[in-house]
Order: sequence, then C-alpha cells, then structure tokens
Amino acid sequence: MDNDLYFMQKALELARVAKGRTFPNPAVGAIVVSEGKIVGEGATEPYGGPHAEKVALARAGENAKGASLYVTLEPCCHFGKTPPCTEQIIASGIKRVIFSVKDPNPLVGGKGAQRLTQNGIEVSEGLLQEQATELNEDFFWSITNKQAWVSLKLAMTLDGKIADTAGSSKWITGESAREYVHELRRCHAAVAVGKGTLQADDPQLTVRHKKGYSPARIIFSSDNQISQNSYFFLHSAETRSIVVVSGGDSSEIKKESGIEFWFTGLTDKIQSLQKFVQMAYQQNLTSIFLEGGQRIASGFLQAGLVNRLYLFYGSKILGDGKDGISFSEGLSMDECINLTGIRQQVFGSDFLISGVPQFKLHGKRP
Amino acid sequence: MDNDLYFMQKALELARVAKGRTFPNPAVGAIVVSEGKIVGEGATEPYGGPHAEKVALARAGENAKGASLYVTLEPCCHFGKTPPCTEQIIASGIKRVIFSVKDPNPLVGGKGAQRLTQNGIEVSEGLLQEQATELNEDFFWSITNKQAWVSLKLAMTLDGKIADTAGSSKWITGESAREYVHELRRCHAAVAVGKGTLQADDPQLTVRHKKGYSPARIIFSSDNQISQNSYFFLHSAETRSIVVVSGGDSSEIKKESGIEFWFTGLTDKIQSLQKFVQMAYQQNLTSIFLEGGQRIASGFLQAGLVNRLYLFYGSKILGDGKDGISFSEGLSMDECINLTGIRQQVFGSDFLISGVPQFKLHGKRP
Repeated sequence: MDNDLYFMQKALELARVAKGRTFPNPAVGAIVVSEGKIVGEGATEPYGGPHAEKVALARAGENAKGASLYVTLEPCCHFGKTPPCTEQIIASGIKRVIFSVKDPNPLVGGKGAQRLTQNGIEVSEGLLQEQATELNEDFFWSITNKQAWVSLKLAMTLDGKIADTAGSSKWITGESAREYVHELRRCHAAVAVGKGTLQADDPQLTVRHKKGYSPARIIFSSDNQISQNSYFFLHSAETRSIVVVSGGDSSEIKKESGIEFWFTGLTDKIQSLQKFVQMAYQQNLTSIFLEGGQRIASGFLQAGLVNRLYLFYGSKILGDGKDGISFSEGLSMDECINLTGIRQQVFGSDFLISGVPQFKLHGKRP
Repeated sequence: MDNDLYFMQKALELARVAKGRTFPNPAVGAIVVSEGKIVGEGATEPYGGPHAEKVALARAGENAKGASLYVTLEPCCHFGKTPPCTEQIIASGIKRVIFSVKDPNPLVGGKGAQRLTQNGIEVSEGLLQEQATELNEDFFWSITNKQAWVSLKLAMTLDGKIADTAGSSKWITGESAREYVHELRRCHAAVAVGKGTLQADDPQLTVRHKKGYSPARIIFSSDNQISQNSYFFLHSAETRSIVVVSGGDSSEIKKESGIEFWFTGLTDKIQSLQKFVQMAYQQNLTSIFLEGGQRIASGFLQAGLVNRLYLFYGSKILGDGKDGISFSEGLSMDECINLTGIRQQVFGSDFLISGVPQFKLHGKRP
C-alpha cells in the first residue's frame, strides 16, 4: 500500500533526526495513523527516556484506538530501562503494527511481533528494511558482536597523503566536506584520534553548530601522558573524556582530573585494540568515529576492526608527505582489503568514498 | 534560437565521433540546414582529407544555396593540406554561418569569419563554445604553445598505490573502467609509458574493439635498450613506435628495426621532458596519453607538463606498495598542485577523478 510507504518514510525521517542522541539505544521513529491522518509521532528519547512507540502513543492518546502504528524497529517486549513497548501498544488499542526491521537483540528477536499477534494485532514487517537497517547498522553490529562499531574517517590528497612533509594538513578538504564531518561525528557515541594527531593538530573533536550534544572524546596512547595544554585536557569537563592506554597490569579503568584512563592490559597492538572495542561496548560507547592519524587508522585496519570507511579526498597532489594508511607489511593484490557497498558524494571539488571493508585475513592479520 | 542549439548539438556529436582520427587537425563537425531540414553533414576526415565543412557542403550539393551552415570551429581561410573552407562556403551559396569557437590558429584567428562577412554571409559565433573548446582542448593548447598536450592517467588503490609490494597491479580497477581507458587512448595521438612499466607489465597500448585506428606508442627510457621480446618491439610494425631517450649528443631522431629513437639531447630530467613535448608537436603527435608508471608520471608532474589528469581509483586498500606519484621532494600544503574543473565518473565500484592541474611553481619546479 502506497500510504504504508509514505508513513514509514516519515517514521524513518524521525529516526534520522534522533540519530546520535540515543546511545546505546538504536534511533527509532514511530507514527500513529488513524483514518489516514497522523495523530501521534515520536522518536527515541535519550538513554533512560521513553522509546519512540511510547512517545507517539502518548501523543495520540485516545486516537490510538483502532489506529495503525508505523515503527522503524520491531517493538521490544522486555523490561530494560523502560517497560516493554508491546504492552503499551496492546493497552492503547492499536489494531495494526507495521515495522521495518526485526530487533537483532537476542532478548527480543521476533518475540515482540509474536506477542502483538497473540493479542489480536495485525503485524507486518520488512517495509524500508534496508534503509532502517543501515540507519542503525552500528547498533545491530554492536549488540550482536558485543563490541563497538568503528567508522574510520581520513581526509587525504589525491595521492593518499594526510599531511605534507612538514606535517601540515590545513586544509586538505574544503569547508563543506568538513561541515559534513561534524554531521558524522554527531551520529557516533565517541570521536577518537591517536595521540600523534592530538600533539600535531590539538583537535577539538566537537560537534559544531549542534548544541546540547557532545560525543565522548577518546585519545589512543601508548602511555597515560596527555599534555595539560591540549584542548582535550582543558575541556575534559565538557564531555566524557577517555585516554585508551595499551598495556597496564590488567584491563581496568581509572579516573584522574576528570579523565578516564582505560588500560587494555595488553601490549600487543592488535589484541589491545580488540580489547578496546569490547570495553567501549561495555561502557555504552557502541559506536566510535575514528579520525586517524596514520598509526591508529592503520592499526584498526590491520586488526580488521573497521566497520565503515569514510575517505574524503581533496583535489590536491603533494607528491610526498604522510601516508593516510601505512601497514607494517603491505598486502598483496589477492589479499587486499576490498570496499563493498561503495557510495560517492561530492563536496565542491572534494569527494567522499564510503564503503564497508572486507578483510581477507588468510590466516594472518593484514 | 532553439533550432540553432539543436543543430549545433548535432554538429558537436559528429565532431565527437571523429575525435582521435584527425591528428594533428582538430575534430570538427558541420551540418547544412535548408528550410529547417538537414541536407548535408560531415566531420573532419583523417589528416590530408577534407575538413568537415567541405564534406557537409559536398553532401548538400545544390541544397546549400540559401542554407545555414553549423560548424563547431571557425572555418579556415588559409591554404593548408586542403584549400580554404571559406572559399568553398562562399561558392556554395550558403547564406548564414554559425560556428562555436574561434580558430586559435594564428593563421586564421577571426580572419575566416571576416572573409565570410565581407562576402555578404551572415556570421555568428559562440554557440556551445565551452563544449566545442573542451573537445579540442588538446588542439588549442598544442597549436598555441607549440608543444604536445599531455593527459596523465593513473589507476590507483584508495591509498594511492599503483601496484602491491611485489609489483602486481592486475587489476586495481574493473572491466568497465579499463574499457573507458581504451576510449581515452583512442582520443589521443600517442599512448606512452615509462620503460619500468614496459618491463613490469609488457603492455599492448592498443585501442581494443576499434579497428582501423592505432595511436602511436611511446616508451620513455634512459637508454635505447628495449627488450626484443616485448609486445612493443614485436608489434612495432603495426603502428608508429617511438623510444624517447633522455640524453644523446643532440636532439635528433634515428630509425632502427622499425622503431624511432628520439634523443632529446638533454640529460636533465625536466629539460628532457620539455624537449620531448616540443619534438612530439613537431612530429604531429599533438596529444599524448601517459599511463605511468610512477617515475615518468611524477617526472611530468614535477616538470609542470601535465595538462589533464585522469585518476582512476579501485575500491581497494593495500597498506603499502608502489606509490602512483612520488616526487623527489614533497610539496607543502601551500605549494601543492590543485586540480580545477573536477569531474567525477563512476564505473561500478571504481571511480574516475578528472581535472586540470594548477602548478604553483614559486620560482622552483615542484
């Protein structure tokens, strides 16, 4: 039914707006439709607040009786921070529920739909499934694998450099590409860089022009020494601030001057990063936006821990400089990392290639 | 007038089809229109053959009387290999001439239009000027600067490599991107690679699926030693085959086993390449399609001799390998080469960035 598609698109738009402020919950949109008219709409509120269905139902009030509910994710049927949505839907008198994608949470997994059907509600699933899945790809991944989703972003010249030989990188890409990076940061639970980048660029790692939301800031370091003059140190009170230290006696978290120090307890680079993505998941930082530099970007790639790549290219050639990616050992053509699901986007004379890396480990780490 | 645009677009299409088979002449299209109907059309014939106007007028015959002539370049008024087109237009009884772009040839330069006007023909210029200029950008450049136009093509991974550490490059890009490379080769007078690429890949440098047209083949070498087992050597009878040797006692051309050896007479890398583009122009090879490898690509870029870049990116990451571009000294962010007039094109999961490099030499070569 065309109307179904129309209302689900509306629900997806609501979910998109909520994206980035619901961690570790997925961003969901819901719309209540009675006699062809929207009588209530909502999106997931920040963690601890109500789910999208509850918001939409509350707004619909008595109008929910006999109405249809469009929701971008299967309603939950378990007690988490909030009571199960299924019970509220049943109580509201909703007659029909249309949802996009099944909840991958093993605590739900089709049980929500089942519970609704058992209570005489007509249920259908799959509408705009692909879009709804992609919007919460980080959530689906992290809850299934019990580790944080990692997006790696690099801004490179056409010859693959992230800085000139003197270390300068201002600016490889233009204003509109950099603006979009802030939008990407907003959609992640944390923004991360290596200590080398901290020292070279002293980045703010903030979301500009978006008041009221700050992703956590993460610095990867081989020690726990952070310059007290850095923006990161001076502004650590503004948002959750973490220094990830490879090594230490065991995997543990210590707090000092308002900064969390996460010791992975492992000195091997790859094992340490693997430990980190698990710690981040446990700490409710379910998606990480990693912005380089070379060492940490290459480390995550070599560990096979990058879920999505965002490669921005400025239309410049340096001829030499700092490579964006540099492995301890180059891959062969047969073993190289391939990107799938490629999308291109143009920003003035810059462009963005986004895709999902496929790792062919062949028994050894790349 | 809308009809004018329609007919000029038709003329431009004819020119596009002729592109690549008219060197050192530009590719031109012409259409004769009488009472709203096309009564004759033509494009530049291969070198020594008639110009587009002559072909179109011959086809129109008596119908040219009182008709309009649409032509993508100002008609010539000088004797070259063929008699001047202006005289044939005047004799044919054409009443109106519409052309896209003024001939940059100093022998013509507006004189063609003037000659027509003096003979009572209504003349207008500038329709589809941009497209017509771009189609023959190589011709306009070479005739103005008395040196060959150089297009540089590289096929790189997302991290800027043209081969893995073992030297393998098969295949960084997919079938459809490689197919398009053959189309680009077809539009140039010569296809060129460095001797390193000849030794590593033994390339054919042919235009596949296009019978009857073969661009010249050029190898850049620091000596005159070419493997007798190479495709280049074994197939030198098929098309004009040239080995460009930096050095030698003086700038001269020697022929041996069907191969031309062009000695630049200069050992300095940049000076030698500058000499080469002049020699190529004098030898009627007015546009060169340069396909790497690293040394020769970087040499032309450092010499500031690249007119257009075609950078193909396969959606792969190697982590290390052979850089596509590597200068003896990297540029700073302030001095880097910027690409303007950027165009993007998608080939499956590969993409092409094309643009015009702007060299900021700052008193020294990049």
